[in-house]
Amino acid sequence: MQPTQPTTLAPRVLARDLGTVEAGSPATLAGWVHRRRVLASVTFLVLRDRSGLAQVVVKDDATVAQIAGLPEETVVEVTGTVSANPAAPGGAELVEPTVRPLTEPAAAPPVELWRPTFGAGLPTHLDHAAVTLRHPRHRAAWQIAGASLRGFRSALGSLEFTEIATPKLVGTATESGANVFTVDYFGRTAYLAQSPQLYKQMLVGVFERVFEVGPVFRAEPHDTVRHLAQYTSLDAELGFIRDHRDVLAVLRAAVAGMVEGITTYAGDAAALLGVELPQVPEEFPVIHFRDALAKVGADPDEPDLSPAHERALGEWARTAYGSDFLAVEGYPMTKRPFYTHPQPGDERWSNSFDLLFRGLELTTGGQRLHRPSDYTAAMARTGTDPSVLAGYLDAFEHGMPPHGGFAIGLERWVARLTGAENVREVTLFPRDLHRLEP
Amino acid sequence: MQPTQPTTLAPRVLARDLGTVEAGSPATLAGWVHRRRVLASVTFLVLRDRSGLAQVVVKDDATVAQIAGLPEETVVEVTGTVSANPAAPGGAELVEPTVRPLTEPAAAPPVELWRPTFGAGLPTHLDHAAVTLRHPRHRAAWQIAGASLRGFRSALGSLEFTEIATPKLVGTATESGANVFTVDYFGRTAYLAQSPQLYKQMLVGVFERVFEVGPVFRAEPHDTVRHLAQYTSLDAELGFIRDHRDVLAVLRAAVAGMVEGITTYAGDAAALLGVELPQVPEEFPVIHFRDALAKVGADPDEPDLSPAHERALGEWARTAYGSDFLAVEGYPMTKRPFYTHPQPGDERWSNSFDLLFRGLELTTGGQRLHRPSDYTAAMARTGTDPSVLAGYLDAFEHGMPPHGGFAIGLERWVARLTGAENVREVTLFPRDLHRLEP
Repeated sequence: MQPTQPTTLAPRVLARDLGTVEAGSPATLAGWVHRRRVLASVTFLVLRDRSGLAQVVVKDDATVAQIAGLPEETVVEVTGTVSANPAAPGGAELVEPTVRPLTEPAAAPPVELWRPTFGAGLPTHLDHAAVTLRHPRHRAAWQIAGASLRGFRSALGSLEFTEIATPKLVGTATESGANVFTVDYFGRTAYLAQSPQLYKQMLVGVFERVFEVGPVFRAEPHDTVRHLAQYTSLDAELGFIRDHRDVLAVLRAAVAGMVEGITTYAGDAAALLGVELPQVPEEFPVIHFRDALAKVGADPDEPDLSPAHERALGEWARTAYGSDFLAVEGYPMTKRPFYTHPQPGDERWSNSFDLLFRGLELTTGGQRLHRPSDYTAAMARTGTDPSVLAGYLDAFEHGMPPHGGFAIGLERWVARLTGAENVREVTLFPRDLHRLEP
Repeated sequence: MQPTQPTTLAPRVLARDLGTVEAGSPATLAGWVHRRRVLASVTFLVLRDRSGLAQVVVKDDATVAQIAGLPEETVVEVTGTVSANPAAPGGAELVEPTVRPLTEPAAAPPVELWRPTFGAGLPTHLDHAAVTLRHPRHRAAWQIAGASLRGFRSALGSLEFTEIATPKLVGTATESGANVFTVDYFGRTAYLAQSPQLYKQMLVGVFERVFEVGPVFRAEPHDTVRHLAQYTSLDAELGFIRDHRDVLAVLRAAVAGMVEGITTYAGDAAALLGVELPQVPEEFPVIHFRDALAKVGADPDEPDLSPAHERALGEWARTAYGSDFLAVEGYPMTKRPFYTHPQPGDERWSNSFDLLFRGLELTTGGQRLHRPSDYTAAMARTGTDPSVLAGYLDAFEHGMPPHGGFAIGLERWVARLTGAENVREVTLFPRDLHRLEP
């Protein structure tokens, strides 16, 4: 019965810091056996920890023999003497080591993780994710995701957005009846939320500016490279706007924050993957949907932009504005959800936008209706039963400001940055039509 | 087709900043009609925005008549002249106002939101949450939650933890078969994850230090003041520890970060609710489970601490250590999950802990098994089929460091800080046995 002993984490040096230790001093590394290179007169042990790689030089016969019995991925603690070596990672290596395994010898991984390029296909990666995510390139992709989250929250936090947590179990499949998972909820039927849309709007009535980072669920019956049954949505919503352009200004701040987050917290990961981070302009260039159709030579009655149109618009934005980003505003009301605010003066169009990033849709956003009478009309127009949305309509009957918001899919953002062809490559444990494990 | 017009948010002054505007200058406020006080010669309009309350003084007959038609919760923009008044919130008020409603007149709220104390019971609050969350006391409770999240992430970010996002749809009800929701997953049965436990352990193998803030799901069949069907779990896990005491040191940093987050970002909210923030000691005092039983005069064979025992221990920690916190370590192995690491030298006990906060359990944590042979033995002992955990056991067969972690329930933390008797009071839209709306 005594206070906690002074607990420090193990007195280890991280791989990236080995070069900062004075040559000749003792040091302890801990991590995974990343690679063993056995030469005639020396064995190199490359050790991997969360910070990177470090080289250990082994010459004595006993330790060489010991290491022969410690396969790649075995977890070890290595104590030795720091020695300068410009050819080693960080300019230093550990010599005359004592190696202490912290676990049993590891089984051979399904693929050699030390090779610079992951040497197997996507199914192998996903089937053995707990191990294959350790490959530096896979790990780097998620480090970019994590850093993006950090930058997103930092940007919105400094704009006084309040973080919220909304229900993922809902009583009605409100946004659309399709692609929704059903849950046995104490004998009743519940649904997994497809987005926090209705809740984030309600909470604008409480906090004015809100954001949520969380899972959303889509029972997507198609097997594509872009869809997941669960993905991470970065949602924001704010009140007291003039129109969707104010939303776009906040989106710009959020995207700039994400890029800054990557620069600050995942610069090495971005470099490893050859990610060319975008310059985020002071303002996103904007084109009206109607003008976008004309620009790409599409029929003026087209209700949407095709992927080829989006690519062409992305190229145009790069040429005309030097921008990786282009906002397309004014999408036809017929293609937008019931809560969409029309464009004042011409209600064929909406006060909504898509943001294209390098010619691909990154996010959708816009202004929402805020007057209760507009909701009554929208319910009637779309044939929605108001009683199933009673808790939501409550907010509007009791005073809601003009507001709008957006949602960014984290996995798509990272896939586009890293050039991954399939969002599954940059998702920790993806879920889809066929995959529920691991 | 032109770049975004320079969009700034509406040129408004927030209520909290009104006192910083030079007296005699014009200013525009925007927000909700919080309260109208009609006196013989003057009408006071109290306006609420995200930052607080501001007073508007109305004397001319036309505006007095206009305001009579704008019930509480109507959203308005008010332009007037700033006038110093030491009796007004922030030391200033707006006089000679022009009032512009931004929505239709609001319906009367189910309860008067301007009264200092919420004047209705919990069912009314929860049934009308979109409106009743606007009550300053309800809003303050969640501001404390949001600030706690911010502080938690900041503390772990500075310790180089990587944020993760793990599957909420899982193929096996791994941790326990009870209290799990089933989902129709493309014709198969899936389950909603009860915690990210297995995934955060696997990801220690990738990033060493990970955390996740996200929803967890419990099909809790009991109607209690402490249980929700969905709550927000603050999970952390780290590798290369010596034992559970290293986990406890990180937990201390996380809790200190949460308290600091509240101080920094929700100081006003904490003051409004009379929250007495705890001092977080440099180290949490620790008592062994065996000694804790003796201290409270319980039978030494008791497998757990009762709520009365926890209260008594909390009082003792306050007296003996001046601490609101007490860690109880060494809980019997029989009461802990299969992945729990035993206490070296006496395997009746475990390297796990509960953290008591003011005599109530706040969080559970500890060291986990890391050797594959230990998992094989644990599976056999608890009668678990290893094949259903293949993706998880993969991590251990391929090298995992000694590791451990903890999980904090956000709603319980806020309930204990604010003295709420029911976690539903501090949850935005709670889900339970009976409630799936709004």
